[in-house]
Amino acid sequence: MNLLSPLFRSVSVEAELSDLATLQGMLDFESALARAESRAGIIPASAATSISAACHAEKFDRAALAESAAIAGNLAIPLIKQLTSLIANSDPDSSRFVHFGATSQDAIDTGMILQLRRAFELLDQDLASLTSTLSELAQKRRLTPIAARTWVQQALPTTFGFIVAGWLDAVLRHRRRIREIRPRLLTLQFGGAVGTLASLSGRAPEIAKSLARDLGLAEPAAPWHSHRDRFAESATTLGLLTGTLGKIARDISLHTQTEIAELFEPSAPGRGGSSTLPHKRNPVTCAVILAAALRVPPLVSTMLAAMPQEYQRGLGNWHAEWETLPDIFRLTGGALHHLTQMLPALEIDTQRMAVNLELTHGLIFAEAVSMAAAQRLGKSAAHALVETACARSRATGQHLKDALLSDPTIRDILPQPELDRLFDASNYFGSAGAFVDRVLAEAAQFSTLP
Amino acid sequence: MNLLSPLFRSVSVEAELSDLATLQGMLDFESALARAESRAGIIPASAATSISAACHAEKFDRAALAESAAIAGNLAIPLIKQLTSLIANSDPDSSRFVHFGATSQDAIDTGMILQLRRAFELLDQDLASLTSTLSELAQKRRLTPIAARTWVQQALPTTFGFIVAGWLDAVLRHRRRIREIRPRLLTLQFGGAVGTLASLSGRAPEIAKSLARDLGLAEPAAPWHSHRDRFAESATTLGLLTGTLGKIARDISLHTQTEIAELFEPSAPGRGGSSTLPHKRNPVTCAVILAAALRVPPLVSTMLAAMPQEYQRGLGNWHAEWETLPDIFRLTGGALHHLTQMLPALEIDTQRMAVNLELTHGLIFAEAVSMAAAQRLGKSAAHALVETACARSRATGQHLKDALLSDPTIRDILPQPELDRLFDASNYFGSAGAFVDRVLAEAAQFSTLP
Amino acid sequence: MNLLSPLFRSVSVEAELSDLATLQGMLDFESALARAESRAGIIPASAATSISAACHAEKFDRAALAESAAIAGNLAIPLIKQLTSLIANSDPDSSRFVHFGATSQDAIDTGMILQLRRAFELLDQDLASLTSTLSELAQKRRLTPIAARTWVQQALPTTFGFIVAGWLDAVLRHRRRIREIRPRLLTLQFGGAVGTLASLSGRAPEIAKSLARDLGLAEPAAPWHSHRDRFAESATTLGLLTGTLGKIARDISLHTQTEIAELFEPSAPGRGGSSTLPHKRNPVTCAVILAAALRVPPLVSTMLAAMPQEYQRGLGNWHAEWETLPDIFRLTGGALHHLTQMLPALEIDTQRMAVNLELTHGLIFAEAVSMAAAQRLGKSAAHALVETACARSRATGQHLKDALLSDPTIRDILPQPELDRLFDASNYFGSAGAFVDRVLAEAAQFSTLP
Amino acid sequence: MNLLSPLFRSVSVEAELSDLATLQGMLDFESALARAESRAGIIPASAATSISAACHAEKFDRAALAESAAIAGNLAIPLIKQLTSLIANSDPDSSRFVHFGATSQDAIDTGMILQLRRAFELLDQDLASLTSTLSELAQKRRLTPIAARTWVQQALPTTFGFIVAGWLDAVLRHRRRIREIRPRLLTLQFGGAVGTLASLSGRAPEIAKSLARDLGLAEPAAPWHSHRDRFAESATTLGLLTGTLGKIARDISLHTQTEIAELFEPSAPGRGGSSTLPHKRNPVTCAVILAAALRVPPLVSTMLAAMPQEYQRGLGNWHAEWETLPDIFRLTGGALHHLTQMLPALEIDTQRMAVNLELTHGLIFAEAVSMAAAQRLGKSAAHALVETACARSRATGQHLKDALLSDPTIRDILPQPELDRLFDASNYFGSAGAFVDRVLAEAAQFSTLP
Repeated sequence: MNLLSPLFRSVSVEAELSDLATLQGMLDFESALARAESRAGIIPASAATSISAACHAEKFDRAALAESAAIAGNLAIPLIKQLTSLIANSDPDSSRFVHFGATSQDAIDTGMILQLRRAFELLDQDLASLTSTLSELAQKRRLTPIAARTWVQQALPTTFGFIVAGWLDAVLRHRRRIREIRPRLLTLQFGGAVGTLASLSGRAPEIAKSLARDLGLAEPAAPWHSHRDRFAESATTLGLLTGTLGKIARDISLHTQTEIAELFEPSAPGRGGSSTLPHKRNPVTCAVILAAALRVPPLVSTMLAAMPQEYQRGLGNWHAEWETLPDIFRLTGGALHHLTQMLPALEIDTQRMAVNLELTHGLIFAEAVSMAAAQRLGKSAAHALVETACARSRATGQHLKDALLSDPTIRDILPQPELDRLFDASNYFGSAGAFVDRVLAEAAQFSTLP
Repeated sequence: MNLLSPLFRSVSVEAELSDLATLQGMLDFESALARAESRAGIIPASAATSISAACHAEKFDRAALAESAAIAGNLAIPLIKQLTSLIANSDPDSSRFVHFGATSQDAIDTGMILQLRRAFELLDQDLASLTSTLSELAQKRRLTPIAARTWVQQALPTTFGFIVAGWLDAVLRHRRRIREIRPRLLTLQFGGAVGTLASLSGRAPEIAKSLARDLGLAEPAAPWHSHRDRFAESATTLGLLTGTLGKIARDISLHTQTEIAELFEPSAPGRGGSSTLPHKRNPVTCAVILAAALRVPPLVSTMLAAMPQEYQRGLGNWHAEWETLPDIFRLTGGALHHLTQMLPALEIDTQRMAVNLELTHGLIFAEAVSMAAAQRLGKSAAHALVETACARSRATGQHLKDALLSDPTIRDILPQPELDRLFDASNYFGSAGAFVDRVLAEAAQFSTLP
Repeated sequence: MNLLSPLFRSVSVEAELSDLATLQGMLDFESALARAESRAGIIPASAATSISAACHAEKFDRAALAESAAIAGNLAIPLIKQLTSLIANSDPDSSRFVHFGATSQDAIDTGMILQLRRAFELLDQDLASLTSTLSELAQKRRLTPIAARTWVQQALPTTFGFIVAGWLDAVLRHRRRIREIRPRLLTLQFGGAVGTLASLSGRAPEIAKSLARDLGLAEPAAPWHSHRDRFAESATTLGLLTGTLGKIARDISLHTQTEIAELFEPSAPGRGGSSTLPHKRNPVTCAVILAAALRVPPLVSTMLAAMPQEYQRGLGNWHAEWETLPDIFRLTGGALHHLTQMLPALEIDTQRMAVNLELTHGLIFAEAVSMAAAQRLGKSAAHALVETACARSRATGQHLKDALLSDPTIRDILPQPELDRLFDASNYFGSAGAFVDRVLAEAAQFSTLP
Repeated sequence: MNLLSPLFRSVSVEAELSDLATLQGMLDFESALARAESRAGIIPASAATSISAACHAEKFDRAALAESAAIAGNLAIPLIKQLTSLIANSDPDSSRFVHFGATSQDAIDTGMILQLRRAFELLDQDLASLTSTLSELAQKRRLTPIAARTWVQQALPTTFGFIVAGWLDAVLRHRRRIREIRPRLLTLQFGGAVGTLASLSGRAPEIAKSLARDLGLAEPAAPWHSHRDRFAESATTLGLLTGTLGKIARDISLHTQTEIAELFEPSAPGRGGSSTLPHKRNPVTCAVILAAALRVPPLVSTMLAAMPQEYQRGLGNWHAEWETLPDIFRLTGGALHHLTQMLPALEIDTQRMAVNLELTHGLIFAEAVSMAAAQRLGKSAAHALVETACARSRATGQHLKDALLSDPTIRDILPQPELDRLFDASNYFGSAGAFVDRVLAEAAQFSTLP
């Protein structure tokens, strides 16, 4: 938490990735390990009880942990020392069984996975909410005319619902991706010093199974200390999601431009104001999301670049993950949360959308006219005629419809009523409505999946 | 293809991503589109025949295409012009129906997907071959002793088979990832100028279905021009795979160090030699893979950063993908191919592995002794005794076993035969063998999946 | 060179970074080395003559080099072998003195530096041309009114000349950076196998000095094989330049939006057209530059990440530079060249700039009014009054001037003539003109520097 | 500050980049602005006094600022509001003159520059200290024999002093870079809402000059709100430095490997221990630095990618800098500080260095022999003979010297005493000593520069 946390992040995701939660994640591992080893008869039941009782993050001296971690090279070593001392105070016998057979990385990795599991739950809630909001919006604006723009130039009419359905369709794909990777990520790390769990005298698989069940995690085929694809995949998956959030924010922000003014972020006292310009209304949420969309991809690159870890435990590359992966979750979680909060109150000026469709003096309908003319004249001849009319319209500012009407060939095959029809955006939506419906059907179906 | 292509890439993947293949991908789209529209009665059957007949990349003037693309802003525009001219020479009527209703991006995106499909097939062949090689190696070296190293320090004994099984386990996860994403990636792009396919007068879904079937691609819920997660996901998936290839290469290269000398890349005339040092044997394949593992992550970052594309077609961010994504496939494909080729001939010096286990004068067995002593003395007392003996051993160079034997407490509870057993690496493999077996079982099962 | 080269790159920079130029760079090193060693009496003069005579890239079999490089691990080894054979055909005695005392990396690094020197000269020509174009433009449009936009919202009036001066000012800083780093980069690499040049029996410094002078390069304090900051700095410097090119392209592209339409890339047959929309005029050059601005930063990251090279020669990280650094020069060089070519023909609609200043119904002048009113009423009271008028104007669509005039307090202190003056953009340019002049003065001064 | 701060960062750099320091940076701008405007007669002297008196970061409610920043979109807006209120309590008249004519970005950018100035001073202290340590080390170990390793294979003998001199030479270049960029970075940002400073009625240049002088910053030719090359260049410069720190750490860590054991990080209670292996001594400082060397390059890429900011103020890309740039300073500062602290106590085992030179059974001296033999036999014949002896040595394990002695041709031209000399590393250091001296001379000279 710092001064910029509320701007860039979400309170709930920050909480799951806080220092306290990091310690609790490791302690949850230690306490479940003690229970599993007690069930297996490897450590006394009383030790498991004492250890579990002590595994509460608030009990630990965080300043001391931070100092010691700088010397030890990771947080688990001093944490386990403090945990051992804590227990030794009241139950010296049990203290000997803390962290039995495990290695620092077991606690750190598994603790991180437990944190990420909760972070994913929060993301999922926001994604579900975003799905609802976008579904409603796509449905409601299914046939609302708006200019489609390519290369930031007006191209053809489309519907705002179709644009929203495109956002929604991408969001659904991300939800599917998260479902696919969660079981792969939510996997126990338990290998002891070098992955063989040698100090458990061959009973490792049994204990690992029991430990995994206790933590609600999958049991891997083998410990995976220096194989980081599980963590890296959670990073790439969030990277992909952030890309889509950025795309939505990019679109919204462009629609909010003074000269376009079709969308506005909701206004509120102090929201997006300028310190000097009383009339400004800045798209703050878009800015936050676009910032995340710039920051997350290089962080993903760090996670991938850190993968070639040396031998059975990496040197520096493992360390490089510790703050990077949580940062990715924080930024993606923040961007998602801010979008989810803002979107239901997005202000939409459908009238301005219609007005903007007229800005090209009809040029935006050139393709529609061209296609219609082609049916009588053939594609090339039609294209040539329309192109000439377009050139005239651009040069003179005359509306394309008028430019076309002044051409006898055109007037002949496309008389005024036909032209009027062609210059009505709602007659040139193509399959936009059908596409919206298909995406909505997918969204509806999605929510019933497990 | 350039001077460094054979070093960094694979001939077959390069071929699928060549200029010629790029043109053919787009032409395959155009020809399938004509057929689908002909089946739907939208264009004449004769046009489809003429168009399909002309869609062979060798027929096109590539220098002219390159020049025109620089002006038009993409390759599809001049390609379609050349295609139209080509057909117009012999069949002017049909030429009017080239690219009917489609947009440049439909051809470019779908063409790329067709290229990537073939590239994935090549990757898959190498991955299957890599799976076999690693499975055999893990099986054969299941219980071969070697020092496990953490933080580049010897830590405990492990088995070389366990190390290889870790590589294999990761490779299997990547194969699963590729299976999951392929159907999502191998999806038709067909949306016309702005995604509505307005010029097809509402028959778009029907034609899209037919076109997708013709090309063997999935049909999307809606066109997805400016939603790039499908492409970006293929990049992240290869990024993850390259990370694991880099990890394997990192490990092998470290084992080839003069001072470790446990593994060697196969020797061959001219292979890995130095221009001045007759005795060198450089790990060239590892270098190539490690280079890919450095280069691919930032390229993945480019693909993610390019996702927030403006409106209905991106400005520059779409363009940023065109060379980046193929480069990722080239580098990953090259790294994978070189590893797959090299690995079966990897030279393994198991004797040196055993010798290296002795380098710490027995310190590597300290944990084993500590665990054994703990059963009699309790963990703390045992740890303290062993630590003292370790310190003595480090200070004097005396073998730890001797240092321990000179301590009467230790000698009492761990007499020489017991100590001899503890200082035999093969008695401290823990569950390494079991873990190898589980990974091998997964590998065996994998090959029977569809 | 591939199908997309003319779009993304510049012919002249591509030529300096071609395969042929790469070989020639290494050969220039070899031939200068022979001359320096001959001058020092270490090799016969006749050998230097023969070697220099053979060092022409066209004489070499590039396909064979590429194949051999894949086995040897770099290009220099097979190149030197071919060079030796070539000379051995006619002058076997001299062939023994090829590459005497040097290592592959000496040839590869120094060759690259020679290539980059030429590439920098090309960049510099374009930067000089860009400086002129921007200077003229800033001068000519020094007081042309345009809306300044922050957060993509209209904020206040500014002048187009001030905007251009901002671009120019940044370009000048990049030119200074390039001047600073060139001497540091243009430094000989010559260290033999491990940097000690042991095979030259202590005469290395003398030969290095002579060799550096021959090549027109600086002589380093010591060989720097595994210290890559010189190369990486050329990458970061181009990364910075590309960022500014991207900023200029971002601005231009936004000004070309249909709804803003203040700037247009020059039109030409086939330029930026759409395959389906006869009226489109796409900002192709901006797209190309923005693509470079997305692609170069991650490539810079690769160069930085490759710096921690192992010992006296890196493993993989050295290899990672070979294609990455030239790619950065290609992309930056292309973006710069396309901008330099396009900008003199940029179309500027100053009338539309003026019209757009009216889009906010006067709200853009709120600050000017507020400042004027503050002189009579104090800042807070003035701000409050203007804010109320703004709110009324937004709600009703009434022009702010009218809204203000209907407020008796305002009307009292700011009668109509005064308000008219305040609503004239040219009275609210602040120090824009002075800032333009200062930047122009810097630009003028710059061209006279060495 | 979080649990990992002491591990990854330096306390002093963290302090300069803390939330408090961020606020103070902005407040220093506001207070200097008031003074400059008072000197110019634009605001009353009493206002400047009141404002300056209030500008102490501890007086502000940070939780409230954080909350408001999330709504306003930046920290400056609520900070200025709080500052205004704070002054209004006691001196309502003066409160009207807070932030007069400035914009949020003026305070944020200039505040950041003030923070970075202090951070650079801390870096510089550590760099000076690092220069001393490395100079002493290079001097002391000027001729200490060690194996040079290329591609992680032993190549030839070198001296440890030469290796250290290579590190030092790179460090000196970074110090020069920082000197070059500091004046460019340490530049005032002051432009008002859109860069024209319109509300200062043309007196902006005068006030800017006075303000810059007050803050000890350079005055720019023009405001540079959306031209971010200054900030980005500080990022690239630190990126380059971090690359060299990573290179040093990479080298040290490799030398600490159990099998090489030539260098050790200093030992201390709890330092680099393992939770399970009593004998481990992990290179913790190297890990921390290598982690930074992985994390910083992608962050640099973020700064570069954020450069193409929209119009007169970026949307999201500006925001992306706020945490990224300080993070770069934190990570680089931490890596540098930890290295600077650790290096003086680095343990060096010169005996082991000598022992390792014998590991190749003399093969490492092959080049020396080859060069000597070439003087009698010509290069090719000598190379062939030595190569044969090397092959025999590798096959049999026989020392190369013995293998050579068993060859009569060799024995003839290189009798035993001559061979003994050739197999003494100290006779094959080439110009290592001279290079060390040149670097030391540069280092000595450097400290006398301003």
